[in-house]
Amino acid sequence: MSCHLTFSSIGLLGFGAFGRLIAAHLAPHLPCLVHDPALPQGATLPTGASATSFAEAASCDLVILAMPVTEMAAACRAIAPHLRPGTVVVDVGSVKLAPAAIMQAHLPEHVGLVGTHPLFGPQSARDGIVGRKIAICPIRGKVHLPVAAFLRARLGLQVIVTTPEAHDREAATVQGLTHLIAQALTRMGPLPSRMTTASFDLLMQATEMVRHDPPGVLAAIESANPFAAPVRAEFQALIAGLDRAYARPD
Amino acid sequence: MSCHLTFSSIGLLGFGAFGRLIAAHLAPHLPCLVHDPALPQGATLPTGASATSFAEAASCDLVILAMPVTEMAAACRAIAPHLRPGTVVVDVGSVKLAPAAIMQAHLPEHVGLVGTHPLFGPQSARDGIVGRKIAICPIRGKVHLPVAAFLRARLGLQVIVTTPEAHDREAATVQGLTHLIAQALTRMGPLPSRMTTASFDLLMQATEMVRHDPPGVLAAIESANPFAAPVRAEFQALIAGLDRAYARPD
Repeated sequence: MSCHLTFSSIGLLGFGAFGRLIAAHLAPHLPCLVHDPALPQGATLPTGASATSFAEAASCDLVILAMPVTEMAAACRAIAPHLRPGTVVVDVGSVKLAPAAIMQAHLPEHVGLVGTHPLFGPQSARDGIVGRKIAICPIRGKVHLPVAAFLRARLGLQVIVTTPEAHDREAATVQGLTHLIAQALTRMGPLPSRMTTASFDLLMQATEMVRHDPPGVLAAIESANPFAAPVRAEFQALIAGLDRAYARPD
Repeated sequence: MSCHLTFSSIGLLGFGAFGRLIAAHLAPHLPCLVHDPALPQGATLPTGASATSFAEAASCDLVILAMPVTEMAAACRAIAPHLRPGTVVVDVGSVKLAPAAIMQAHLPEHVGLVGTHPLFGPQSARDGIVGRKIAICPIRGKVHLPVAAFLRARLGLQVIVTTPEAHDREAATVQGLTHLIAQALTRMGPLPSRMTTASFDLLMQATEMVRHDPPGVLAAIESANPFAAPVRAEFQALIAGLDRAYARPD
């Protein structure tokens, strides 16, 4: 497959758990200019990545917003004056309708917009990201094409092209339920580890994989996704109905 | 390890999904005499197993009760007159307090009693049972010792010796929650399979492993276990609390 990858450098805004994962995987391919107000002076960055000013990061031809959804509008307003025509701006949030609306509202017409949701995190990507899934949503322009080509060819990701609404509907179940169950199980205190079944062991593995996700990720998945609350309500009603049936067996 | 395995034949009462799994794994080691009123004439049994009368199965020196907990009292009353002194009677239910009480109440003093709970089923044992876990509870006599030795030496199982109460407390969480979650997810209709995360895939694997368990198994796990209802109540309260918090983020 031949693909023209037109990006020459990446501006990474945000260096939390996921920003670090991005830098580790992108810096071997392209210079990665990182800005995060919380980044300590002299922090160690991966080879190929360097700390920089806000303005310089925003001047790259691919700009990645790696911050909680709740901080995205402010970030967009702040970078808008620094973005050059033809720049591609990408977010990596766990929800896609809200970031799409925010980027469209606050970023100038002369930049292309793509929503992405890497369907993995620091825990599930511990053994690498090749073959992992990423959802991408075209938002403004055809710039999702070079982004998708880069993700496939350079990172080996499985790219799923979708719309923000279709994404959020599926994620409400996929992530909304997984995180809800994991958070509840985590709060049940020390769970059995000796007399376990294979299926319970899988449930614990799933829980362990997501229970350490930062509050911003949980907020995106459960609160910023408009379809998450109805899915949680359906799950609760089913659990309550089953509980009643089990309490009064025939 | 030297162990004197004193059993010469096994009487297997019940030939449902789990009875079949038992016969497949025990018949290579000891003659296995199977009785199930629902067993069709001319049904195919594993090599080493043969269909027999109720009385003959009950005359073996190891008798296994492989029926739903709700049918166990009637079965015990029926086999009692046929049991020979020194026979060991074992159940394989997913709950242990109720079968222990039933066997103690209905089986003569001259037989030894052991409760067992193989922590695997037809789905999770598809690739074999070596290394899988089994809980065993001494109930009457020291006869759990030759049973445990047999399970370890001949079947390669990991034997966990415990009490019926300790077992049921742990199983209320391990199986009670796993099956509750699996049943609820199964009722949510077709779940996403494309835009999935690694943790959701694990949750689906766990669900697939237990969702086809027969109603008798579900009844034992959720209704016959006295600790299951409080565990379900705690889980429901946690889910409801999380849902309220997610619905009103700060």
